[in-house]
Amino acid sequence: MPVELSAQEIWNDIQRIHDVSPLVHNITNYVVMNTTANALLAIGASPVMAHAQEEIADMVGIASALVINIGTLSRDWIVAMKRAMESAAEKAIPIIFDPVGAGATAFRTRTCHELLEQVRPTVIRGNASEIMALVDSTVQTKGVDSLIDIAPVKAAQSLAKRLSCVVVVSGESDLIADGRTCVYTHNGHSLMPKVTGLGCTASALMGAFSAVQSNPLLAAAHTMAVMGICGEIAAERASGPGSLQMHFIDSLYQLSEQQIVDHLKG
Amino acid sequence: MPVELSAQEIWNDIQRIHDVSPLVHNITNYVVMNTTANALLAIGASPVMAHAQEEIADMVGIASALVINIGTLSRDWIVAMKRAMESAAEKAIPIIFDPVGAGATAFRTRTCHELLEQVRPTVIRGNASEIMALVDSTVQTKGVDSLIDIAPVKAAQSLAKRLSCVVVVSGESDLIADGRTCVYTHNGHSLMPKVTGLGCTASALMGAFSAVQSNPLLAAAHTMAVMGICGEIAAERASGPGSLQMHFIDSLYQLSEQQIVDHLKG
Amino acid sequence: MPVELSAQEIWNDIQRIHDVSPLVHNITNYVVMNTTANALLAIGASPVMAHAQEEIADMVGIASALVINIGTLSRDWIVAMKRAMESAAEKAIPIIFDPVGAGATAFRTRTCHELLEQVRPTVIRGNASEIMALVDSTVQTKGVDSLIDIAPVKAAQSLAKRLSCVVVVSGESDLIADGRTCVYTHNGHSLMPKVTGLGCTASALMGAFSAVQSNPLLAAAHTMAVMGICGEIAAERASGPGSLQMHFIDSLYQLSEQQIVDHLKG
Repeated sequence: MPVELSAQEIWNDIQRIHDVSPLVHNITNYVVMNTTANALLAIGASPVMAHAQEEIADMVGIASALVINIGTLSRDWIVAMKRAMESAAEKAIPIIFDPVGAGATAFRTRTCHELLEQVRPTVIRGNASEIMALVDSTVQTKGVDSLIDIAPVKAAQSLAKRLSCVVVVSGESDLIADGRTCVYTHNGHSLMPKVTGLGCTASALMGAFSAVQSNPLLAAAHTMAVMGICGEIAAERASGPGSLQMHFIDSLYQLSEQQIVDHLKG
Repeated sequence: MPVELSAQEIWNDIQRIHDVSPLVHNITNYVVMNTTANALLAIGASPVMAHAQEEIADMVGIASALVINIGTLSRDWIVAMKRAMESAAEKAIPIIFDPVGAGATAFRTRTCHELLEQVRPTVIRGNASEIMALVDSTVQTKGVDSLIDIAPVKAAQSLAKRLSCVVVVSGESDLIADGRTCVYTHNGHSLMPKVTGLGCTASALMGAFSAVQSNPLLAAAHTMAVMGICGEIAAERASGPGSLQMHFIDSLYQLSEQQIVDHLKG
Repeated sequence: MPVELSAQEIWNDIQRIHDVSPLVHNITNYVVMNTTANALLAIGASPVMAHAQEEIADMVGIASALVINIGTLSRDWIVAMKRAMESAAEKAIPIIFDPVGAGATAFRTRTCHELLEQVRPTVIRGNASEIMALVDSTVQTKGVDSLIDIAPVKAAQSLAKRLSCVVVVSGESDLIADGRTCVYTHNGHSLMPKVTGLGCTASALMGAFSAVQSNPLLAAAHTMAVMGICGEIAAERASGPGSLQMHFIDSLYQLSEQQIVDHLKG
């Protein structure tokens, strides 16, 4: 039974983010640190980027959500990710997991399995290939395959059931599954994949939404809707991916309830 | 006795930066490396980012100022920071120290104390919570508290006296203290804290100003005035934090003497 | 005998990049990771940034070109660079080498020599000082000296002959040499050096062009022409280096055959 999204509930979450300004702790990749920090600030959250093993537990201790993104992985950072996920689980704050490039190399797929076996995340967000690779480690990612067909839906539900978490498959439409029910979001613009790290931005913002929205299926779906809506608004003003990135941040900052009502595609 | 700022002297410093193009060596955090390098280029300086222990001394050897920023700290980088500060002290070039997140974790506060005990910086720039944490290690940072009230002023003067350096407390107004006298700068815009790393940009630019202005109190105050003025000019043209960041760099590049005269708030 | 550039051939390469969307593996510096990934996406290529020794061989195994950039060098990353270059040589995909800051420290110059002795790159791209430092290790870089005079031409041809590769000396005009013949490109704008990492962007895009253009002299020359043309188009719309960076990405994305015809300077 698909869930219907409500513009009002999305707006409520955004207002709560503004009111609470949740501290979102990110262990993420070098490529997107700047842009994801700016996206979190624009939506009203407080970003922190820190990865030293000596401070991970303390930093998670003052955070309201944890975002783990394996984009530019290395051994030391994996140790930090493990400690952070353990600390977040102990403190019972939401954990968003972004398996960037899972399937592209055995090292990435193996690292994802290690991290996910140890601590259950709240949400896993990836493109179809990455999610497939987490379900079936024989899948070899070649570039980005973001078409949502029947296989990813089954893969997402299977992974969600196995790990008792929410799984988001990003693409032209986004699928949000919790093992039983699912939500689709249909906003977005074809220029968005031309900007590096907007998927990572989705994962980061999911940290902010999860901090204020206790239903992880809704937190994830609201994030994807907001990403898509802001992408559409930004694309109207953009002349290419450079200006899209800038307008996207401005759109996140300026987003109004009316814009959500006008743009939301159920 | 508060010091009055002079638009003419600020402009003189900027012209000297343009003439000399000082090489500013930054050991800074991953989040802001790109934006601070661009800010340094825009004001007319030459940025270098390097952290390998094997080359730190050589790189400081050709630099006119050193900027240490602990934003995304880790053990190896602390070693590099120590060596860089030692080399800078030997060479007697200005050292700007940005204690990002001091007080947020014990590791950060402890690292700041270690670095500052070893080598006296020329300027320490942080927000009120960070500066308070350096004075009283029992202070626990929770988010960003940038209100300048009586406590930070006392803290800044006490820290400045103890370390014989200049201490800058950034906020809505900025306080620049040297243990005896102090300067306030009142420029800036409320959108600026919505852009990640503008505080780090202030520290980086302070490296450029300190390279050409031998009075560190003035170098720091001129930097904060220029930050605020460029932020105001950028905010007039911006629709949000995304476009503010872009216009801010353009404003730094285009800044004229007349704009400083028109905008400077004493 | 200088080679003449053809707008038609440049356009053919761009169309092939769009058709093939070559995966370009970058081991590059922290400062430019975001902007170079965006440039590769804008031209139609697929960027990957990964440096873990555990996955280097696998990642190179699915890539169509490798870009090595030593901007923010450290020991672990050198190991990754070596493995990546070995894997790329085995797989016979193009290797672009960017010796950022060669000559500035002995560590950088030495590292370049180590890497270049081990594996022959397809193209080396640097400014005049960096290229000179690779030829004569007694050259000490002081800031950026990008004037093309007779010495760099000789240095470039000598280096190209010795390593049997193409050498690009970037500057106001760009020199592309293969040890026998050479090409000059004359496009570009004086605002471009005010944006951090546009040289690194040239090296990254060279990865994309080399993946589709089997003549490395032409691949390098076409890249430099496109960089310069997009810089000119962006500069017409820019108010400073902040907006130049944004318009540059948009220009890469929108670049048309007619624009190449109109702007190309032989």
